[in-house]
Amino acid sequence: MIVRKLQDIRGSDRNVKSDGWESARLLLRDDGMGFSFHVTTMYAGEQLQMHYQNHLEAVLVLKGTGTIEDLGTGITHDLAPGVMYALDAHDRHVVRPATDILCACVFNPPVTGREVHDASGAYPADTDMPRVLEAAG
Amino acid sequence: MIVRKLQDIRGSDRNVKSDGWESARLLLRDDGMGFSFHVTTMYAGEQLQMHYQNHLEAVLVLKGTGTIEDLGTGITHDLAPGVMYALDAHDRHVVRPATDILCACVFNPPVTGREVHDASGAYPADTDMPRVLEAAG
Repeated sequence: MIVRKLQDIRGSDRNVKSDGWESARLLLRDDGMGFSFHVTTMYAGEQLQMHYQNHLEAVLVLKGTGTIEDLGTGITHDLAPGVMYALDAHDRHVVRPATDILCACVFNPPVTGREVHDASGAYPADTDMPRVLEAAG
Repeated sequence: MIVRKLQDIRGSDRNVKSDGWESARLLLRDDGMGFSFHVTTMYAGEQLQMHYQNHLEAVLVLKGTGTIEDLGTGITHDLAPGVMYALDAHDRHVVRPATDILCACVFNPPVTGREVHDASGAYPADTDMPRVLEAAG
């Protein structure tokens, strides 16, 4: 059994900050659960365009409001606590937080935790792991 | 893209109530995400002994307090908002909610949503799906 506290993750290298968002990775690939599990904050006023080409992601909004636009259909959905969206078709999308949005995120396959650093050039490409492009979460 | 609201799930057959807990299934196996994603309430004063023999589960506490006892090690951990536990070894465990505990739960493989009914005899065994025994969540 793995037991972790969000407040401990916040102070560790499992808490990743990037442009417009930060994410506390409660579970990563190495934990062997078959998914990764994050608590992510998307900052008010940002416009976060994302496209997970190699991952499925589900997001449950815990706090905050905003919108998500499905760039495939052009449909915009309101985000508020209790709204869940699932990117079951590698959907290209834009999240526009009106306030800071706190959410619980699940990725399949699990992310390794190195993707963000990889995109920033801090690490070489992880050749045994599909790349996350334009990734946040 | 799938978008669902917890309040809508609450009023549907995806909201399952059983002894000591209830669970709103935001995503089930048929959604094709490779995991299921639930918002579960474990009721104050209950003693929930669980053993997922065929599933891995991660739980993030959103509200409430209590404890989880790992029956394999005898160790008891406090539960409070921001605590995550992951049953990475099919751990036998007991949750004792001091207050109602609201949590976000992820199952791998995803549950079908029929397991609870199955255990109650309302449905025949799902032969293409591992059985969940003593299951809650």
